[in-house]
Amino acid sequence: MQNILPLNKGICSLESPATVEEVVARGLNLLREDLMLPAAVLLSNRLEHNLAWMQRFARASGVQLAPHGKTTMAPALFEKQLKAGAWGITVATAQQARVAAEYGVRRILMANQLVGRQNMTTVSHLLPGCEFFCLVDSAAQVELLGAFFKAQGQRLNVLVELGSDGGRAGVRNQQQLEEVLDALGRWPGSLALCGVEVYEGVLDNEAAVRLFLDEVVETAREIAVSRGFDRSPFLLTGAGSAWYDVVAEVFGAAAKGLKAEIILRPGCYLTHDVGIYRLAQQEIEARSALAAELAPGLQPAMQLWAYVQSIPEPQKAIITLGKRDAAFDAGLPVPTLHCRPGNMQPLPALPGWKLTRMMDQHAYLAIEEEDDLRVGDMIGFDISHPCLTFDKWRWIAVVDENYNVVDMVETYF
Amino acid sequence: MQNILPLNKGICSLESPATVEEVVARGLNLLREDLMLPAAVLLSNRLEHNLAWMQRFARASGVQLAPHGKTTMAPALFEKQLKAGAWGITVATAQQARVAAEYGVRRILMANQLVGRQNMTTVSHLLPGCEFFCLVDSAAQVELLGAFFKAQGQRLNVLVELGSDGGRAGVRNQQQLEEVLDALGRWPGSLALCGVEVYEGVLDNEAAVRLFLDEVVETAREIAVSRGFDRSPFLLTGAGSAWYDVVAEVFGAAAKGLKAEIILRPGCYLTHDVGIYRLAQQEIEARSALAAELAPGLQPAMQLWAYVQSIPEPQKAIITLGKRDAAFDAGLPVPTLHCRPGNMQPLPALPGWKLTRMMDQHAYLAIEEEDDLRVGDMIGFDISHPCLTFDKWRWIAVVDENYNVVDMVETYF
Repeated sequence: MQNILPLNKGICSLESPATVEEVVARGLNLLREDLMLPAAVLLSNRLEHNLAWMQRFARASGVQLAPHGKTTMAPALFEKQLKAGAWGITVATAQQARVAAEYGVRRILMANQLVGRQNMTTVSHLLPGCEFFCLVDSAAQVELLGAFFKAQGQRLNVLVELGSDGGRAGVRNQQQLEEVLDALGRWPGSLALCGVEVYEGVLDNEAAVRLFLDEVVETAREIAVSRGFDRSPFLLTGAGSAWYDVVAEVFGAAAKGLKAEIILRPGCYLTHDVGIYRLAQQEIEARSALAAELAPGLQPAMQLWAYVQSIPEPQKAIITLGKRDAAFDAGLPVPTLHCRPGNMQPLPALPGWKLTRMMDQHAYLAIEEEDDLRVGDMIGFDISHPCLTFDKWRWIAVVDENYNVVDMVETYF
Repeated sequence: MQNILPLNKGICSLESPATVEEVVARGLNLLREDLMLPAAVLLSNRLEHNLAWMQRFARASGVQLAPHGKTTMAPALFEKQLKAGAWGITVATAQQARVAAEYGVRRILMANQLVGRQNMTTVSHLLPGCEFFCLVDSAAQVELLGAFFKAQGQRLNVLVELGSDGGRAGVRNQQQLEEVLDALGRWPGSLALCGVEVYEGVLDNEAAVRLFLDEVVETAREIAVSRGFDRSPFLLTGAGSAWYDVVAEVFGAAAKGLKAEIILRPGCYLTHDVGIYRLAQQEIEARSALAAELAPGLQPAMQLWAYVQSIPEPQKAIITLGKRDAAFDAGLPVPTLHCRPGNMQPLPALPGWKLTRMMDQHAYLAIEEEDDLRVGDMIGFDISHPCLTFDKWRWIAVVDENYNVVDMVETYF
C-alpha cells in the first residue's frame, strides 16, 4: 500500500504524505468538514452487510464466488472478499491481474481474452505463484497464446468463452468452438483447457438468459465427454450482478452431473447502488426465493459528498461534483442527505432535489426557491454504477454510521 | 514526481517501480508491442505544435494565457505551458491548486468558487508562495471566506464571477453583484477583489457570447470606477476552448481603457481532439482572421491504442478499450491507425471502421467481413473530449513520430 499524498483528492488537507494509520488516527469526521469535498466514502456497515449477504447467497446456492475486482480495483476490498470466503478474484485485464497478485490474491480469473505481448509477459510473471485463468474464443488468439507460453516454457490455463449473437466476445457457433478446440489441441503442453466461461449480462430478459445458459451447460457436457478438460473439476463460470440468481440455479443444478466447479463473478454487489443495480437486485429478489429469504438485501454502500458552491438562480444550486467524480452513464447521482456545517446530524435531502446536469467539475441541482439550502452546505449523494465511480478516486474513506473515518482504501486504475 | 509502478496501466511490463528516466532508457516502441495496451499516448510533435500555436495566438492578440490545468492535471505539461510563456495555470479545485503549487506553479487561478473548511485550509497553505485567485459569486460565500481567512491572518485574492441565466455559477444581476461587493466590503483586510471572471462556454452562439462579454466589460468598468479593484492591473478573464477568439477580441479591445490584464483559460488546445474541440476550432478559424492566419491550426495530439481481442461476428470486432480508458460523453474514440504486430508502419484505419458501443473495459468496432483485421492487431484511436480521457490514466507515454517512447507524464486526479 502506498502513502496517501497531499496531492490526492477526497482526503483531508495534508502537509506531507501519510500512512492510512496516520490519517485514521486523526479522528476525521466527514460531517465536521474534515475532508476536502468532493469525496467518495464507503459506508462500513453496509459494505460488511453486502459482503456477507452475497457470500451467504453463494453458499446457500452451492456455488463459489470470484467477485469481479474490476469494479473497485481496491486490494483492501479484495482481501475482505477473500476472507469472507471468495474462491478467487475476477479481473478484466493483465494490469488488474498484476494488482491482485501483488496484494496476495492467489487465484485470479481474468474474464477476458488475453492478447498482446506485454500483457502476456505480465501474466507470465504471475504464473509461478497464482492459479490464473483467462479466456479464449478464437483459433487466432489460441495460436498467439500458445506460441508465447511455449516460448516461456509455461502452461497457461484457459477457459473457452461462449457468446451469443449481438453480444460481446465468445464463440457463437459449433464451428467456431471446434476451431478453438482444434487450435488448443496444437498446444497441449502450453495451454490447458480448464473450463467454460460466459457473460450473460449482455442479454436483457430471463428467458433468453435461461436458454443461453442451458445451451452452455450442454456444450460444456459435450466438451467434457468428447475432449475432456485439463482440470478436474473444470470451471463453469458466469454471472455479473444482474442474473447471478439464474446462473446459480441453472449452473448449480448441472454441476454435480458435470464434475464442474461453478464460479459466479458479480462485482457491483459490494457497494450496490440506487440505480441500475438496485433495479437488477429488485428483479432478483422477485425471481429468487433464496434472495428474497435472505432479506434485508443489498444496501447502497458508496456515497459522494460535495458542497453547494453557488445558488445563482432561485431554482438552481451549483454543486462541487462533476463527471470527474461520479459515474454519469447510468443515471446521475441522487441527493440523499443534507448537512449544514456545524450540525453533526444530516437531514434527508428534500424530495424535489435532483441533479439535472453534470459538467466535468460541477453539477446542477434543481431546487425550489423556498428550500432551506445555503452556499457551504454539504450534500450526500447515492450513486448509480459503482464501476465508473470507483475509478474516479485513488483513495476512498471508509466511514462508520456517524461518518467517522475508520479506514482509507486505495484503488489501482 | 513519483515512480512508475508495475501496477499502473498503459506502461511496459515492469518487475519493480522505475523512474521515468529508467523507463525511457528502455527504448520502448508502441508499435513493437512494448506497452501494455490499452495505453494512452501523447504525440510529442503535435503537442509542441499546439503549445506554440496557442501561445502565438495569445501574444498576437495581446492577451495572457492561464491554460486550464484541469484538462490534463499533468504537472509536466503545466511546466511546458509556463515555459512557453503562460502567465499562470488555471485549476478547478483546491486539490488541483495544491498539485500545481507542489510542482512549482506560482500563479494559480482557481476558476471556481472556493468553499469548505478543508479546501480553504489547503489554499491557505499555498498563499505564502503563490499568487492565488479564486471566485466569489454570493454574499454567503464571501462571508465564509472572509471569516476563515481573517482567522488565518491572511488576505485571499478573489475575482467576482459574472454568470448568465441558464448557465453555471456567477452573479446574474446587479442586485446579486451589489450584495457580493457589499459583503467584500466587510472583509477588506481578508479578501482582495482582484478582477472579474466569466465562463462564456455555457453559451451556444456567437451573438450571445458577444452580448454577454460586452456586458461584462461594462460591469468591470463600473466596478473599477465606483469601488475600484484591489489589484492593478485588475484581471479580466474568460475563455474556454470554444470562444477564446471572441473573448480575446472583446476583452483585448477593452483592456487598455480599463487597465486590465486579460487572461484566457483554454485547456483542451494542448491535445485538441477530433470531436467537439475540432468542431469548435473549425468555427474559430472561420471567425478569426488571426486564427486562420496561424495555419496549420491545432492538431489532435492524444491517441489511445488497444488490441483486437475477438472477432466473434463477421461485422464486429471486440477491442480492449472501454469507458475505463476513454471519454465517451462527446462521441466515442475514432479509429485512425491499424498496425499488425511485426509491422512498424501503421496503416490508416479503414474508413468504414467505427466504434458503436463502449462498455467498461471493451468496445464494439463495426467492420466489414472482407476487412483485413485479425485478433492481436493494434488499433490507434483519436479521441473526443481530452478532459475525460486524461483522467483515466495515471501515466501517459509521450511518443515521437515513430511511436518511440520519449517521455512519460504523470497525472494527479
